[in-house]
Amino acid sequence: MLLHHASWPEVEAYLKRCKGIVIPIGSTEQHGPNGLVGTDAICPEVIAAEAGAESGFLIGPTFNVGIAQHHLAFAGSMTLRPSTMIAALNDWIESLTRHGFDRIYFLNGHGGNITTINAAFAEYYANFSLDAAACPVRLSQRNWWELPGVGDTCRNLFPVGDGMHATASEVAVTYYAHPQAVKTVEMSPKIAPTGSFTDAADYRRNFPDGRIGSDPSQATAEKGAEIVAVSRGALIAELTAFFGVQPLARAAE
Amino acid sequence: MLLHHASWPEVEAYLKRCKGIVIPIGSTEQHGPNGLVGTDAICPEVIAAEAGAESGFLIGPTFNVGIAQHHLAFAGSMTLRPSTMIAALNDWIESLTRHGFDRIYFLNGHGGNITTINAAFAEYYANFSLDAAACPVRLSQRNWWELPGVGDTCRNLFPVGDGMHATASEVAVTYYAHPQAVKTVEMSPKIAPTGSFTDAADYRRNFPDGRIGSDPSQATAEKGAEIVAVSRGALIAELTAFFGVQPLARAAE
Amino acid sequence: MLLHHASWPEVEAYLKRCKGIVIPIGSTEQHGPNGLVGTDAICPEVIAAEAGAESGFLIGPTFNVGIAQHHLAFAGSMTLRPSTMIAALNDWIESLTRHGFDRIYFLNGHGGNITTINAAFAEYYANFSLDAAACPVRLSQRNWWELPGVGDTCRNLFPVGDGMHATASEVAVTYYAHPQAVKTVEMSPKIAPTGSFTDAADYRRNFPDGRIGSDPSQATAEKGAEIVAVSRGALIAELTAFFGVQPLARAAE
Amino acid sequence: MLLHHASWPEVEAYLKRCKGIVIPIGSTEQHGPNGLVGTDAICPEVIAAEAGAESGFLIGPTFNVGIAQHHLAFAGSMTLRPSTMIAALNDWIESLTRHGFDRIYFLNGHGGNITTINAAFAEYYANFSLDAAACPVRLSQRNWWELPGVGDTCRNLFPVGDGMHATASEVAVTYYAHPQAVKTVEMSPKIAPTGSFTDAADYRRNFPDGRIGSDPSQATAEKGAEIVAVSRGALIAELTAFFGVQPLARAAE
Amino acid sequence: MLLHHASWPEVEAYLKRCKGIVIPIGSTEQHGPNGLVGTDAICPEVIAAEAGAESGFLIGPTFNVGIAQHHLAFAGSMTLRPSTMIAALNDWIESLTRHGFDRIYFLNGHGGNITTINAAFAEYYANFSLDAAACPVRLSQRNWWELPGVGDTCRNLFPVGDGMHATASEVAVTYYAHPQAVKTVEMSPKIAPTGSFTDAADYRRNFPDGRIGSDPSQATAEKGAEIVAVSRGALIAELTAFFGVQPLARAAE
Amino acid sequence: MLLHHASWPEVEAYLKRCKGIVIPIGSTEQHGPNGLVGTDAICPEVIAAEAGAESGFLIGPTFNVGIAQHHLAFAGSMTLRPSTMIAALNDWIESLTRHGFDRIYFLNGHGGNITTINAAFAEYYANFSLDAAACPVRLSQRNWWELPGVGDTCRNLFPVGDGMHATASEVAVTYYAHPQAVKTVEMSPKIAPTGSFTDAADYRRNFPDGRIGSDPSQATAEKGAEIVAVSRGALIAELTAFFGVQPLARAAE
Repeated sequence: MLLHHASWPEVEAYLKRCKGIVIPIGSTEQHGPNGLVGTDAICPEVIAAEAGAESGFLIGPTFNVGIAQHHLAFAGSMTLRPSTMIAALNDWIESLTRHGFDRIYFLNGHGGNITTINAAFAEYYANFSLDAAACPVRLSQRNWWELPGVGDTCRNLFPVGDGMHATASEVAVTYYAHPQAVKTVEMSPKIAPTGSFTDAADYRRNFPDGRIGSDPSQATAEKGAEIVAVSRGALIAELTAFFGVQPLARAAE
Repeated sequence: MLLHHASWPEVEAYLKRCKGIVIPIGSTEQHGPNGLVGTDAICPEVIAAEAGAESGFLIGPTFNVGIAQHHLAFAGSMTLRPSTMIAALNDWIESLTRHGFDRIYFLNGHGGNITTINAAFAEYYANFSLDAAACPVRLSQRNWWELPGVGDTCRNLFPVGDGMHATASEVAVTYYAHPQAVKTVEMSPKIAPTGSFTDAADYRRNFPDGRIGSDPSQATAEKGAEIVAVSRGALIAELTAFFGVQPLARAAE
Repeated sequence: MLLHHASWPEVEAYLKRCKGIVIPIGSTEQHGPNGLVGTDAICPEVIAAEAGAESGFLIGPTFNVGIAQHHLAFAGSMTLRPSTMIAALNDWIESLTRHGFDRIYFLNGHGGNITTINAAFAEYYANFSLDAAACPVRLSQRNWWELPGVGDTCRNLFPVGDGMHATASEVAVTYYAHPQAVKTVEMSPKIAPTGSFTDAADYRRNFPDGRIGSDPSQATAEKGAEIVAVSRGALIAELTAFFGVQPLARAAE
Repeated sequence: MLLHHASWPEVEAYLKRCKGIVIPIGSTEQHGPNGLVGTDAICPEVIAAEAGAESGFLIGPTFNVGIAQHHLAFAGSMTLRPSTMIAALNDWIESLTRHGFDRIYFLNGHGGNITTINAAFAEYYANFSLDAAACPVRLSQRNWWELPGVGDTCRNLFPVGDGMHATASEVAVTYYAHPQAVKTVEMSPKIAPTGSFTDAADYRRNFPDGRIGSDPSQATAEKGAEIVAVSRGALIAELTAFFGVQPLARAAE
Repeated sequence: MLLHHASWPEVEAYLKRCKGIVIPIGSTEQHGPNGLVGTDAICPEVIAAEAGAESGFLIGPTFNVGIAQHHLAFAGSMTLRPSTMIAALNDWIESLTRHGFDRIYFLNGHGGNITTINAAFAEYYANFSLDAAACPVRLSQRNWWELPGVGDTCRNLFPVGDGMHATASEVAVTYYAHPQAVKTVEMSPKIAPTGSFTDAADYRRNFPDGRIGSDPSQATAEKGAEIVAVSRGALIAELTAFFGVQPLARAAE
Repeated sequence: MLLHHASWPEVEAYLKRCKGIVIPIGSTEQHGPNGLVGTDAICPEVIAAEAGAESGFLIGPTFNVGIAQHHLAFAGSMTLRPSTMIAALNDWIESLTRHGFDRIYFLNGHGGNITTINAAFAEYYANFSLDAAACPVRLSQRNWWELPGVGDTCRNLFPVGDGMHATASEVAVTYYAHPQAVKTVEMSPKIAPTGSFTDAADYRRNFPDGRIGSDPSQATAEKGAEIVAVSRGALIAELTAFFGVQPLARAAE
């Protein structure tokens, strides 16, 4: 069930059976010559939506702009400052816990978000820890590509050139999700260089077309479908454990 | 063109022809017994997406959680604090202007956002005004229901009970956008009461099922389609004026 | 009764009869060739002071610098950033509610403040709404020129060229309040242009002498007296309703 | 000249002769049984206004709510948090320096403000110091009771029981400024106790009627007039030195 | 006892006997040609450590970077912004009070910190004062050179040229604490000028080698030992009074 | 060379040869029954100090309170909120870069700090990336236990029960650094449990004496010496590469 497509009485009813929710969290940033700017938001969004439809677990809105200062030398990339993101995530969390949600699972689509999400969790917990109060809420984040079985699937599909940014896998997932947005672009070099980076100027100097270590021209919607299928199942299993509730009857939608 | 579905070279190309972008901005909050929690984000999102597809103007990601503290007594509602939203909007604006966007148009779906969006604009302009520097950027916000012709359309479709919150019009737009989420609920009373509110407890006391002045059981996807069609055209006309650029050839997507 | 002229035992006694207070809130910004920089603070201050003297309702200190970034290209204008003003207003509100004030009425003198005051209210209410606690406090803002009857009075006095900024009406009120500060200046053009603005440079380019749509050379102290008289009565009526208390015996002062 | 009573062309003309301005800064807090809640704002306001009228130096709006958390157990007291006050003072300072003011003199009426004003200055200077840029602006604060000659005058007028808070001197100044607000209250004990304090509860426990070490029943408007006269002269002398400009011809007002 | 050298069970045991703790607080900033950049942190750290070892009172970690924006034109100087320092000190205080510490004594080594420490205290107390709650915690700050007897000792040791910054006394204390860091530098002029300053550029212009009014070439480790001995005893006496507990048996360490 | 033991002319001279600096960064938090509260600050401090003495590279002050909200149920633990730490680290970084330091290496002693340090770096870089300016500064963080060779050394010394928190290795390093603080405590159970945690109450419930997976009763100063020796060498090698400068002649100290 998507929170955005539910009515409040439906959410109220859901909370009687389950106090867990998934927040897809991504980024709006360049993903190389043929990748979508929204890739990192779209991937967790589509995986969560499919898992939510199958399991009945509730999927919240997508947190769609994250920490991407290093991509700003490529047109269309957007970023929050980490301090802003910490504040925004705490408002989201406080809103949800107000209703009784006590298991909030962030399905993350962007490596650059990990540390700030973790800092936001510490900011939230600190309110309880400094007050000597036990926090009834558990927060969790997971990168979708680290869900059990997903890495193997991606390596099977793209034994060479899956890469680290603008990966073949993530581009494939977006092509599956939005086939009308598939782009055919020749990669040069075939596989992008690897390395490290600091700010946006440094990133662009090191990775002229935005990719890191990848050849996303291998991406197809079909391969994306396979990745999503594996991810969906693995996500439902994780949510079942984290929420402590069996998947609900499929929500009517 | 949707920013999320574009590649960075496509955005770079777009910027050579047009420096304007639309940001749909809404809220995640209860919309009565048959309205979707995501209504206020979905409405500007679908209108902007259709206008973008027709005109080629660029549509950015949806700012989907806004100022909804007064709805928090209804399950599923989420809010930012105004100070957080000001910070987040400024990060979005600074990201976009970094690439050369100088006309940013926020298509708003939630009355509760208006004042904080305006405050965020003043926060942004103040950096220039205090520095005695001329700001090259123009920011604009518009409620979709105030686009020319939309109010008349809504009044024609719903002469009675369109209302102020969980309006028949906005519910109709979401039913058009997401027909699988249509909900059939008897309204009681038929038309909800009207009045004012302060915090969440006060709101729920005054408006027990969340609606204000509306009978959204009148909403249908067909009526929503009509509203979107009028809104789309009006939006393109506004963007043409604000961006100072004729609609571009329709983006392939 | 003015809070600034009361002793704490007098305030304590007042609180036994009434838990309402008025905060005049304005701005420090250019008001054209013959208008006072303090106009927007002076107008609500004088109206509130007269209403307080007549009714015995308590009038707090004037919040005298507001959101005026757009006026900074004219000497003497001052601004707060919106985020600063939200923080300051919340400190003021928390101070007053600590004593038991539960009806705080902001009499506003500056259009540019409206949205940030509203955002500050939402920031305050959000503390309660996120805590699932009912807020016992009601906050209200009102532009003095929108008090019942005031608009008609102004239109009668200045059928032409009352305008939108540096209005004949507001300048008249300040001339009534501070007759020693009356300034005689020829307006050129007689009636200033109208339009919109963004930052300070844009404002000055569009409105070279600071006025918008007005001919404030019509302002006189006598006309100001008339506006204040109408405003005073209308304000007392509003406070009576909002505070839920009849005007008190006139405070000895 | 009062900024609030000047027009922007008058301020512009002033800046050609002098780049200095005075900001009266006080507090809104209890001042014992016969003292005004506005005492700490009124004192610097009236002294500055008289000095401004005599010298032609420009006097800005009064910063009227300061750091008074320790007074909050007495009705009517208001406080800013220090972090809020630092932000607000920096906005005031940035607004003024934007116009070319480079000597900003805060005439302070409240001991509790001193440290936060100083912290606000450091916050402002830090922007330049961290940027390795020379700051063209000089900020200064002075407690009015420490102006040369004022302490002697007060000791002469009140050899016993001038005190530390709700002093006979400051109450006298407010009685001079606002004779209609004079209050006759028997003090018990005649002279209040002295000591230290931390938060509001601690303050009220130690100083049950709000006074510290004072017998303000000695205050009269006549004595206040004497104090203001001495303060006015001393202030003009200080401003002359700090601004580096001789007093201007008296501003017509 | 040093908190950093204690185990948590030792701290838990300590809290059964005493709820007081000392936080040495200093700065990292230039101290003239022969003074250590860490001088202002080292002085309170060594005095507190010796007092803690003798008395058994608990000494916390050193807050080692303070308000030193005015020293930034000299290499190696570091500063916090005052608003940052207020936030950090409040986190330190909240952490300690969470464990039951209710007497927190900041032994300060840097004049530039005084006002911001005081503002941080007001920020902390304001939480209680605005909540109408009595704060159970007492915060205190003391400059080590103002401990009873220390000023006399310093004047005896350095009758001429002790100075105001990079004083002979403080340099002597650091030489005692870290004899391997003694530096022999000829001072020119022998005694540095005195005066005031604003930002870093202004400071360096007025005080070319960083000293104010001092001849720290007089400093020796032996004289430092004498100052520390006097300071240690005076500090123990102050802590005994402030903590309301006799010095504990010397902690095994 | 330690910054705290250097004079500003020495720092100025250093900057002509090398623009790199090391900041030891740790935490103040429980480390089990025999571990020091300061462990995570002491470890990077001693390793950096020894590396600095040998190589001549400059070592800054220790950032000694970090992110430890989860340890607050054990006496003596202290924490910053992540948002505070981001602000403080940015002030430290801006101070250092102001002098020309362009390689800042944080030697970290606390796993809980990693994500917030990373977020602080992104906050810093974002200023440049949003301004479309190339950042001349490189920031780096490294956990001391991940320096090349250190893990092997620790595993050799403690093949069983080195653990994850209050590790035998880190306790050994502190015993080497401060032999007077060695504590002999029987561990029960011998090896602590492992697992995860959220807030402080959850942590204490899962790990009753504070340790995770470790038997720190194995720690000795001799083993600590061995770990420090390996770490020192590895650190110098890393700094040589990161600073792009060969180790300097040993600083006289």
